[in-house]
Amino acid sequence: MREFEHGGDIYRNSVRLDFSVNTNPLGISEKVKNAVLNSANCFDVYPDMEYTSLRNAIAEHEGVSVKNVVCSNGAAEMIFAVVRAVMPKRALLIAPTFSEYERALRSVGCEIEYYTLTEENGFCIKSDFLERLSGIDMVFVCNPNNPTGSIAEKTIMERAADICAENNIICVVDECFMDLAQGYSMKGRLPVIKAFTKTYAMAGLRLGYMIGDTKFCGDIKNQLPAWNVSAAALSAGLAAVGDEEYLIKSREIIKAEREYLSTELKRLGFKVFKSETNFMLIKGARGIGKALLDRGILIRCCDNFRGLDGSFYRIAVKKHEENAELIRELGDICG
Amino acid sequence: MREFEHGGDIYRNSVRLDFSVNTNPLGISEKVKNAVLNSANCFDVYPDMEYTSLRNAIAEHEGVSVKNVVCSNGAAEMIFAVVRAVMPKRALLIAPTFSEYERALRSVGCEIEYYTLTEENGFCIKSDFLERLSGIDMVFVCNPNNPTGSIAEKTIMERAADICAENNIICVVDECFMDLAQGYSMKGRLPVIKAFTKTYAMAGLRLGYMIGDTKFCGDIKNQLPAWNVSAAALSAGLAAVGDEEYLIKSREIIKAEREYLSTELKRLGFKVFKSETNFMLIKGARGIGKALLDRGILIRCCDNFRGLDGSFYRIAVKKHEENAELIRELGDICG
Repeated sequence: MREFEHGGDIYRNSVRLDFSVNTNPLGISEKVKNAVLNSANCFDVYPDMEYTSLRNAIAEHEGVSVKNVVCSNGAAEMIFAVVRAVMPKRALLIAPTFSEYERALRSVGCEIEYYTLTEENGFCIKSDFLERLSGIDMVFVCNPNNPTGSIAEKTIMERAADICAENNIICVVDECFMDLAQGYSMKGRLPVIKAFTKTYAMAGLRLGYMIGDTKFCGDIKNQLPAWNVSAAALSAGLAAVGDEEYLIKSREIIKAEREYLSTELKRLGFKVFKSETNFMLIKGARGIGKALLDRGILIRCCDNFRGLDGSFYRIAVKKHEENAELIRELGDICG
Repeated sequence: MREFEHGGDIYRNSVRLDFSVNTNPLGISEKVKNAVLNSANCFDVYPDMEYTSLRNAIAEHEGVSVKNVVCSNGAAEMIFAVVRAVMPKRALLIAPTFSEYERALRSVGCEIEYYTLTEENGFCIKSDFLERLSGIDMVFVCNPNNPTGSIAEKTIMERAADICAENNIICVVDECFMDLAQGYSMKGRLPVIKAFTKTYAMAGLRLGYMIGDTKFCGDIKNQLPAWNVSAAALSAGLAAVGDEEYLIKSREIIKAEREYLSTELKRLGFKVFKSETNFMLIKGARGIGKALLDRGILIRCCDNFRGLDGSFYRIAVKKHEENAELIRELGDICG
């Protein structure tokens, strides 16, 4: 499993501070938590198979039609469902990126090519990416990308959308971290995956969705088992969607704390790659992850990301006191 | 969607009593509900990807090794996952049976043959089923079968297991309703699907599992997205598994109430097919479902089950006061 290991494995580690996970640093809102607790009378009832109320709320929030929304048991289930709806023979992935795209593509026996981001380019997508779109059926773009936090230039994504439309290539954009950044969405032009999991810190409840054209949403629904969204996730999603106050506060904290972490990490000698969302890629001495874990702090060692090695780490942007504690411990280790 | 419509759609109907759903009539236990409510601090944390504690508890309860247990987001997800692990070209299904097998098989473009149960045989599997196993890659047997409630003779299932082993046919037994009946399990000989959803009335929380050989469990895990089991389902599952007191009480009530319903329904002129679990198939005048719904009672009209028509209904065995209310209303309608 090491090959596809993720962050957030607090179950096989003794952890007091988890910087390996990349959900909203504010944590789940009281409103959302209470919505789940108040829905306990639904725990033994089948959830609405069509989750109409939730899809309506998402559609309104996203400014799209309800026919263009499908929900899933976390974004991970949606990744598998889109792959099965497309059944690609040959796909392009960015390296490094979130590993579930590769797991999903491999599960249908798809051949995979890689567009490798380079340290020299700050691990950003450049226009040579567009040349790599020829001869493939499907491509995933994680935007902002995980684990780098960088957003692709909008002109590159728009050109990619044109090329994909002309060549019948399905380009899926995973915008799970966009609501915590200040970027743009490709919705309306390309199928877009989003996650309550990250945006509203509901990782334990599992809720993702896709915005796509009506036909594609129907194809995806056919790949999803009945009742794939739990009653707990439905209640949480309804309470969370479009909570602008929470989102604005989240983005403010993330921006300020990202700058704090960036300055402090550079001061400690780390190379910090430019991020626009709630986590950042850094480079430093190997063994830092182990040293931090000995002190009860888990960071995401990136040695199992294709294109990275054991000198790279992904660090979540958390609340100030937690970030300050990380910097204190790192100062102690590196000093 | 009508083709694959299920029971339990209380979202597009005005319902005070839902006899269309087939979960444990006792409802979720307080112990399980409280376990979820007490796990609220896990709602924003990624659940354990390997759900080791739950798999250990299930393995102990089932008397198998932890390597032989995989969990899923309800049994429905497991049905899709086993189909994708096998990728059958030609499958055999019983008719009538639970429609998610057909949806899952169709989602991978599999050809489907049907072994049609007949009213004359009380909708029971007979030994001619064994002849139908030739030339197929995969077969699903729902045992007890949904919507009939009947259990296949053990000698037929054992012979089927032999034939499948000799001919490399994957025979998956869905025993989701077996813990509420008093039957036998094929675990150890054939891959078996079970569901907390039905047994412990956790339909809103979604938790199913498979018991299979180590290799097959690994293949299935490769078809499942990461974090497919929510933290809420994990907490509920851990509290529920092996609650013998609850299971014994459930079976007692189901047996007694099934006999009560059977007697009363026959008295009202319905044909009642022999069930051994928590629901029963009955035959009566068309339009009964509509008449009951006008009185706020939902039963499962079986006209969209392959092999049945609008004169068949599936009725859950519920608690006595609810069953008595159904009989009263039916008496009023039929009298």
